[in-house]
Amino acid sequence: MIDTTPPVAVLMGSQSDWSTMRHAAETLDSLEIDHDDRIVSAHRTPDRMVAFCRGARDAGYQVIIAGAGGAAHLPGMCASLTPLPVFGVPVESKALSGEDSLLSIVQMPAGVPVGTLAIGRSGAVNAALLAAAVLALSDESVAGRLDAWRSARAAAVDERPVDDG
Amino acid sequence: MIDTTPPVAVLMGSQSDWSTMRHAAETLDSLEIDHDDRIVSAHRTPDRMVAFCRGARDAGYQVIIAGAGGAAHLPGMCASLTPLPVFGVPVESKALSGEDSLLSIVQMPAGVPVGTLAIGRSGAVNAALLAAAVLALSDESVAGRLDAWRSARAAAVDERPVDDG
Amino acid sequence: MIDTTPPVAVLMGSQSDWSTMRHAAETLDSLEIDHDDRIVSAHRTPDRMVAFCRGARDAGYQVIIAGAGGAAHLPGMCASLTPLPVFGVPVESKALSGEDSLLSIVQMPAGVPVGTLAIGRSGAVNAALLAAAVLALSDESVAGRLDAWRSARAAAVDERPVDDG
Amino acid sequence: MIDTTPPVAVLMGSQSDWSTMRHAAETLDSLEIDHDDRIVSAHRTPDRMVAFCRGARDAGYQVIIAGAGGAAHLPGMCASLTPLPVFGVPVESKALSGEDSLLSIVQMPAGVPVGTLAIGRSGAVNAALLAAAVLALSDESVAGRLDAWRSARAAAVDERPVDDG
Amino acid sequence: MIDTTPPVAVLMGSQSDWSTMRHAAETLDSLEIDHDDRIVSAHRTPDRMVAFCRGARDAGYQVIIAGAGGAAHLPGMCASLTPLPVFGVPVESKALSGEDSLLSIVQMPAGVPVGTLAIGRSGAVNAALLAAAVLALSDESVAGRLDAWRSARAAAVDERPVDDG
Amino acid sequence: MIDTTPPVAVLMGSQSDWSTMRHAAETLDSLEIDHDDRIVSAHRTPDRMVAFCRGARDAGYQVIIAGAGGAAHLPGMCASLTPLPVFGVPVESKALSGEDSLLSIVQMPAGVPVGTLAIGRSGAVNAALLAAAVLALSDESVAGRLDAWRSARAAAVDERPVDDG
Amino acid sequence: MIDTTPPVAVLMGSQSDWSTMRHAAETLDSLEIDHDDRIVSAHRTPDRMVAFCRGARDAGYQVIIAGAGGAAHLPGMCASLTPLPVFGVPVESKALSGEDSLLSIVQMPAGVPVGTLAIGRSGAVNAALLAAAVLALSDESVAGRLDAWRSARAAAVDERPVDDG
Amino acid sequence: MIDTTPPVAVLMGSQSDWSTMRHAAETLDSLEIDHDDRIVSAHRTPDRMVAFCRGARDAGYQVIIAGAGGAAHLPGMCASLTPLPVFGVPVESKALSGEDSLLSIVQMPAGVPVGTLAIGRSGAVNAALLAAAVLALSDESVAGRLDAWRSARAAAVDERPVDDG
Repeated sequence: MIDTTPPVAVLMGSQSDWSTMRHAAETLDSLEIDHDDRIVSAHRTPDRMVAFCRGARDAGYQVIIAGAGGAAHLPGMCASLTPLPVFGVPVESKALSGEDSLLSIVQMPAGVPVGTLAIGRSGAVNAALLAAAVLALSDESVAGRLDAWRSARAAAVDERPVDDG
Repeated sequence: MIDTTPPVAVLMGSQSDWSTMRHAAETLDSLEIDHDDRIVSAHRTPDRMVAFCRGARDAGYQVIIAGAGGAAHLPGMCASLTPLPVFGVPVESKALSGEDSLLSIVQMPAGVPVGTLAIGRSGAVNAALLAAAVLALSDESVAGRLDAWRSARAAAVDERPVDDG
Repeated sequence: MIDTTPPVAVLMGSQSDWSTMRHAAETLDSLEIDHDDRIVSAHRTPDRMVAFCRGARDAGYQVIIAGAGGAAHLPGMCASLTPLPVFGVPVESKALSGEDSLLSIVQMPAGVPVGTLAIGRSGAVNAALLAAAVLALSDESVAGRLDAWRSARAAAVDERPVDDG
Repeated sequence: MIDTTPPVAVLMGSQSDWSTMRHAAETLDSLEIDHDDRIVSAHRTPDRMVAFCRGARDAGYQVIIAGAGGAAHLPGMCASLTPLPVFGVPVESKALSGEDSLLSIVQMPAGVPVGTLAIGRSGAVNAALLAAAVLALSDESVAGRLDAWRSARAAAVDERPVDDG
Repeated sequence: MIDTTPPVAVLMGSQSDWSTMRHAAETLDSLEIDHDDRIVSAHRTPDRMVAFCRGARDAGYQVIIAGAGGAAHLPGMCASLTPLPVFGVPVESKALSGEDSLLSIVQMPAGVPVGTLAIGRSGAVNAALLAAAVLALSDESVAGRLDAWRSARAAAVDERPVDDG
Repeated sequence: MIDTTPPVAVLMGSQSDWSTMRHAAETLDSLEIDHDDRIVSAHRTPDRMVAFCRGARDAGYQVIIAGAGGAAHLPGMCASLTPLPVFGVPVESKALSGEDSLLSIVQMPAGVPVGTLAIGRSGAVNAALLAAAVLALSDESVAGRLDAWRSARAAAVDERPVDDG
Repeated sequence: MIDTTPPVAVLMGSQSDWSTMRHAAETLDSLEIDHDDRIVSAHRTPDRMVAFCRGARDAGYQVIIAGAGGAAHLPGMCASLTPLPVFGVPVESKALSGEDSLLSIVQMPAGVPVGTLAIGRSGAVNAALLAAAVLALSDESVAGRLDAWRSARAAAVDERPVDDG
Repeated sequence: MIDTTPPVAVLMGSQSDWSTMRHAAETLDSLEIDHDDRIVSAHRTPDRMVAFCRGARDAGYQVIIAGAGGAAHLPGMCASLTPLPVFGVPVESKALSGEDSLLSIVQMPAGVPVGTLAIGRSGAVNAALLAAAVLALSDESVAGRLDAWRSARAAAVDERPVDDG
């Protein structure tokens, strides 16, 4: 638990999305960025969604990360309800492998932007990194940790492949 | 204009959807079913959407028809906000020809149904016919007009094709 | 077995569709709505299909739920043969994951509506809920149970995700 | 008009399909194969479809060509209703360019075959040629004309491209 | 092994296609139709393909069934090389689930028809049934067995689904 | 021309992308946010791309908007070369309508985020709005203008559709 | 006309492919590389195809460029028939915009490679450039002209977009 | 390890691509063609990529094989940075099965060719064979080994399928 409003809210449509969205949370942890992880369903708890998103800026949040699957409406509805930057993560769906999630999130009409990341785990990690890049614009310590993260990542790329059995 | 609440609300996300959704309105007209046509944007006027859908049953509506394009969230959000049956019309989008609209409307999670029709004009006509079929269950006069509509349609099918120049 | 015609018929193209369509049946059970589950193949038993659908209204059915996979013709043919509202469930197919089922059901021509739900289990659950929403228009007890179902569902959404091991 | 039952029936779901299916008819004409062109809608005139297909073999037809678009059910339903070989032509649809037509026709379940041709005009021409290849198995004169058609076609391929302005 | 040329050749691009195409062979067996099963690769043994297809009619074959996966060229090349009717079976491919196989087989240009069946096992069964329907036009005993097969299939459809554990 | 580095760089792969990306520029203009519009091709001028992106943070830019079409590599390469937030706009491509552009931009591997907007004009407008939302976090005047823009947009939504001739 | 065998053969399935493939020819012209442009249909003139490809290496050709559309078999069959490098150009098809052409060309089985370029005009230009890159490995003058072409192309990229009216 | 620059570089975006790209390496081994296998990430090690590709021709490489998955930028960026022929292998991605990888590699704009092979293992094998075909143009011993490889492959095709248990 946290005492003050953290800069990032990690929202998801259901408990089942957590296996994807936890990668956003863990990436934020590794960058020492506080975050608030919540289940906020556009379809099952629309009032909770409206209340949270309408109040997010005044509460002190700076970036919203929202993940959902199938006919994924949470990221777009968040973007409708808050002026904060919203980054969307298409959760991989069962039948259509997340193609439906992706199109439901990225194809927003002019006026309501959702910065959309890749389907699944990679997208969740990247939503966290993109949130960090935004926070880094006005927070030197985040900028420093993000630079370090990127350098470490580059240094970890081996020169040559290793046989994988 | 109408004096009492009509049985059907025809909602659309923007004025540009009207060129598709007017086919729902015209089909309802031809079946002598009153309807209320409104622009209710999930993304630009979320409060209007919540207010309308939350109050739709008490206001006396019986069926909601909702059309939208791209990352189309209006039908699903309506279904989240009202217990009335909601029928969704995927409006043809520019780049992806309505494939995004279709998936954004039809792939709803368990718990929040949207009865989805075909992309574009055919879907708008059929949403009206499906609404009529629902109303016909408890309104003999609608049932009679729908039967007549169906018979006339069948009778209009020629036996043989005619050269089309 | 049932004594009188129930309000809902749950049709499916083959025994193998039952693993999907049983979720429609179970949802109707949980809402205390009687239903008749039948295998009616458009392709293997067309006469049975014609006889059942042609007689469905006079027999006392109010809503038809039809599920099929691949080149799924059962929902659309039902809609051709009965004036009752027909809701279609695209069963997930082996090679194309139900994309073929979805397009075969939803892309009906103007004049013959099928209210289409999501691919697979979610769609089966939602077809039952949509049937309930239709029946609720003229049956207060169904309306009450559907409202209770929706409230319970909303209340079951946790505030925060729980680690999933 | 024709005096006796011709060997090939060219069926289509609506008058609008004729601009595609006339290419089947014209190809049959060029091979001097009689044919009967009929509008038989699976969705609007199901009784006509059942009656025609059920009686097609006894009436003396040998091959059925059926074209339809969107959620195209005519070819598959024909194959359900007659033991004659059925060849299906996916008519190009407006929003999805015939991808829906193709999947609705080709993805038939085991037991009910439809030999499916390409989307649109090429498919209509080829349905006629495939019908001719079937008839040629027991009709030397058709075989001769088909061979001549193929030879002429090969001879018409130029050696080098010509500038096309 | 067989003494005289059977009416049907079942061709496939590689040994790995046999797990699909054996369903064509088994269906032909159940209809007591002789067949010749051969591996004929368009890509690895083009000379064998040309020789076989060029000589197929004179050898006494009446129908060619050809299955292949991925960039599947065997059915279309057969149709180029023989005037006999060719039925194509798209074998399910690894990455794209047979969508590539399907389009490579069905989208033939005007002049070279391949009657295409569904992706995978269903398509293989149906290719055999379609071949039987063609042979039945001039062989009463095949017609009788095909009618019996279809009747038995219809009779095997249960009235109601059985719980599947 | 501008005197100091503006907060936003609008990059595009070629002059032909300008008809899409000008909508980003115009939206930034309407929000009174300075921007630098540049043609920076990943494929034709890789050195220019590396130099610009490597130096973007030190030069004083805060957000990069990058649009490209087809196998669109510019947004992803920018994200590789700068720690600044990068927002990608898939430009509609000729054959595949921007589906290729979308997947090439959004499906980035974990570690290199691109916040992706919708295909075409809507995406360009939204990239500008998302950039504004980011800048608004530390610039009250931008926040005020963005709030005003959003309010005006909501107020412009009519209650009812108007016949469109 | 040419006196000796040129290094590159530009093959296409039909005259209608020339409007695409002429861009390959013109690009080769601009690089002063001789080429032989021929219509060689896999489907209509298989013998011509076999003869040309079987003899291409002995005739002195070094690279084959082959373009075709729909169920495009020419590039793959060329690769089956010659050990020379084959580069394939998917010609844009009418209904499916070249997606069928692309998959029919690129998804070749292990053992028969076709180096595939983009759909349409860009692919045709690039097939020529790739052929040039291959020839440049053993021809200094081609290498020089290709380098010059690439430098000129880079130099032609403007710094800033120009309003396009 | 190798003493001199081998003719082929096999590049991949990450260690995880090696399970696909090793099939390219093994095929080169079987043809006795030296190769250098390297991890060169467009996204994580852009400087390494630029340095390697810019210097590849002078270092003595003749052909570049590059494999990557998802938003796969490595092959296209290589083609931007070197005049050598570049062959791309789309590695199968998790959610979209390599469709994203394929489009990101093959849909290059005019001016920057990547000869693209099939998704996954088949594509890796074929990239090696295509590289061999290029080298064979100026190396008789490679040509001989490639011819032997092709002959052996054809001879290994059995006449008839064997039951696969």
